[in-house]
Amino acid sequence: MLDVLTGPDLTIAHVKAAHQRIKPHIHCTPILTSSYMNELTGAELFFKCENFQKAGAFKVRGASNAVFGLSDAMAEKGVATHSSGNHALSLSYAAGRRGIPCHVVMPRTAPEAKKAAVRGYGGIITECEPSTTSREAVFAEVHEATGADFVHPYNDPRVIAGQATCSLEMLDQIDTMDAVIAPIGGGGMISGTCLTLSNLAPGIEIYAAEPDQADDAARSFRAGHIIADDAPNTIADGLKVPLKENTWHFVSQFVTDVLTASEQEIIDAMKLTWERMKIVMEPSCAVPLATILRNPEVFRGKRVGVIVTGGNVDLDKLPWTLG
Amino acid sequence: MLDVLTGPDLTIAHVKAAHQRIKPHIHCTPILTSSYMNELTGAELFFKCENFQKAGAFKVRGASNAVFGLSDAMAEKGVATHSSGNHALSLSYAAGRRGIPCHVVMPRTAPEAKKAAVRGYGGIITECEPSTTSREAVFAEVHEATGADFVHPYNDPRVIAGQATCSLEMLDQIDTMDAVIAPIGGGGMISGTCLTLSNLAPGIEIYAAEPDQADDAARSFRAGHIIADDAPNTIADGLKVPLKENTWHFVSQFVTDVLTASEQEIIDAMKLTWERMKIVMEPSCAVPLATILRNPEVFRGKRVGVIVTGGNVDLDKLPWTLG
Repeated sequence: MLDVLTGPDLTIAHVKAAHQRIKPHIHCTPILTSSYMNELTGAELFFKCENFQKAGAFKVRGASNAVFGLSDAMAEKGVATHSSGNHALSLSYAAGRRGIPCHVVMPRTAPEAKKAAVRGYGGIITECEPSTTSREAVFAEVHEATGADFVHPYNDPRVIAGQATCSLEMLDQIDTMDAVIAPIGGGGMISGTCLTLSNLAPGIEIYAAEPDQADDAARSFRAGHIIADDAPNTIADGLKVPLKENTWHFVSQFVTDVLTASEQEIIDAMKLTWERMKIVMEPSCAVPLATILRNPEVFRGKRVGVIVTGGNVDLDKLPWTLG
Repeated sequence: MLDVLTGPDLTIAHVKAAHQRIKPHIHCTPILTSSYMNELTGAELFFKCENFQKAGAFKVRGASNAVFGLSDAMAEKGVATHSSGNHALSLSYAAGRRGIPCHVVMPRTAPEAKKAAVRGYGGIITECEPSTTSREAVFAEVHEATGADFVHPYNDPRVIAGQATCSLEMLDQIDTMDAVIAPIGGGGMISGTCLTLSNLAPGIEIYAAEPDQADDAARSFRAGHIIADDAPNTIADGLKVPLKENTWHFVSQFVTDVLTASEQEIIDAMKLTWERMKIVMEPSCAVPLATILRNPEVFRGKRVGVIVTGGNVDLDKLPWTLG
């Protein structure tokens, strides 16, 4: 376990330690470029393909850092989280690699496919009712019964330090960059990006991208304090969660701007990427490109790292084939 | 223009010259691996991602070799072909890079999206009726009127030498291989693979993969002479064309075996690759994996190069979303 309690305590040493710790368990994902996308945007885009990451998303970086940072005594009791998305998959994967249990609290109404995927990585699911009250109560029971270490999907400094290894790799892989852009939900990836770049390359701009229909980070950024969305509804379902104190610390201090895009712009950018770059990515990952296309003047002539955060999509329900 | 007339005249020197000639115009595409796919098959698979190639398919290798091998006098009159698939796109792309015209004869009934894609790369389309008679008549007219150089999609030795550069790169990128597998339609890619490997690494087995429902290459291979399919019908629409004398030369001499897969096996392998590897590829490209899964004993324990030939898919008509 990292000897830190809050976001402000994190240093670049934590990021480098995280990278050494998780390297055997993750991919150093490739950078893809596309002359078509460069012509379209007037920028030079470098896509960091975390959709090719273990368990299909960058979340495995933070999850692995938490799991492999535990003492043997702590690890024995396993880890626990509540999530129905990529964090649950990633934590299950990392726990499986260490050979310890991973407890996941999920609403009983979550899609069977998601439950199967978590179980496929070895996660142990406890179902709750689809309400915050039930989730918290059930999670407390599981936590109490198992003594497992709680790994929050993004508000945990160990998780932020893990996500920070993504931009650490980008600094190595890409000659120079003027800006980096990534989607923002709870802010784990953006916070990690801020942590790395503010220390190693403070001249690089950091843009956060989110849906118009879940624009709590943009509103928080402008207001200067955390504003949560009231039941946001967007196709980019990884981006519905609110900022928390540890991620707000980085967003408020180091982010250049938070840009937004409409649902249609997100779907168009997603389809365009599949068509032209031949990669499968989640709606959330299309948000950065959608905001670049909406704000070309911000990026024109710049070398921009674009973090493609994950590729776990239900191929039976693609947004452009739905009526 | 290469100073050769038939397949048997081709040497490894032609392949190396082709590689030098086309390098500025193509990508050296990456190799992807997947521990999931390795566990599933019991083999070690190395996916050569020609779906990330310029114009979305390996065909740009052969097309570029033909286009950039022309003398200035020849080039001035442009190039011509009849194709409604990746060869038309690739030839248009290569001609555009050289700044010469590319004439494409296509049935007027071809999907508008395909016509738009060819025009998008600068190709000049002349429409014919959807019959072989009309296609040949219209092509003869275009050829006569323009004096353009005819570049056949696969039976042209310049094209075979170009496709051969793919396995040349693989020998560089992958430590050792026991086998290479690629889809077979007209046999251009497989012939190029034979040309390179029979010269540089004759110990590597070469497997050709095709649909049960277009198994003319398998039947030809067993019969010892070319047998054409009678109106084959398969989702792997790039693989419907028959072998010709220049490709038959290589297939008959150097291929280890021709394996086949059913339509459902092809669709399942395609979806599995999208889901687990997060790459967009054509149905044709899923045929090798489908045959590996059908014949695990052939590949178990081997290091196998799998050529993913292209990624030009109609995202509005994915086979698993069709009723």
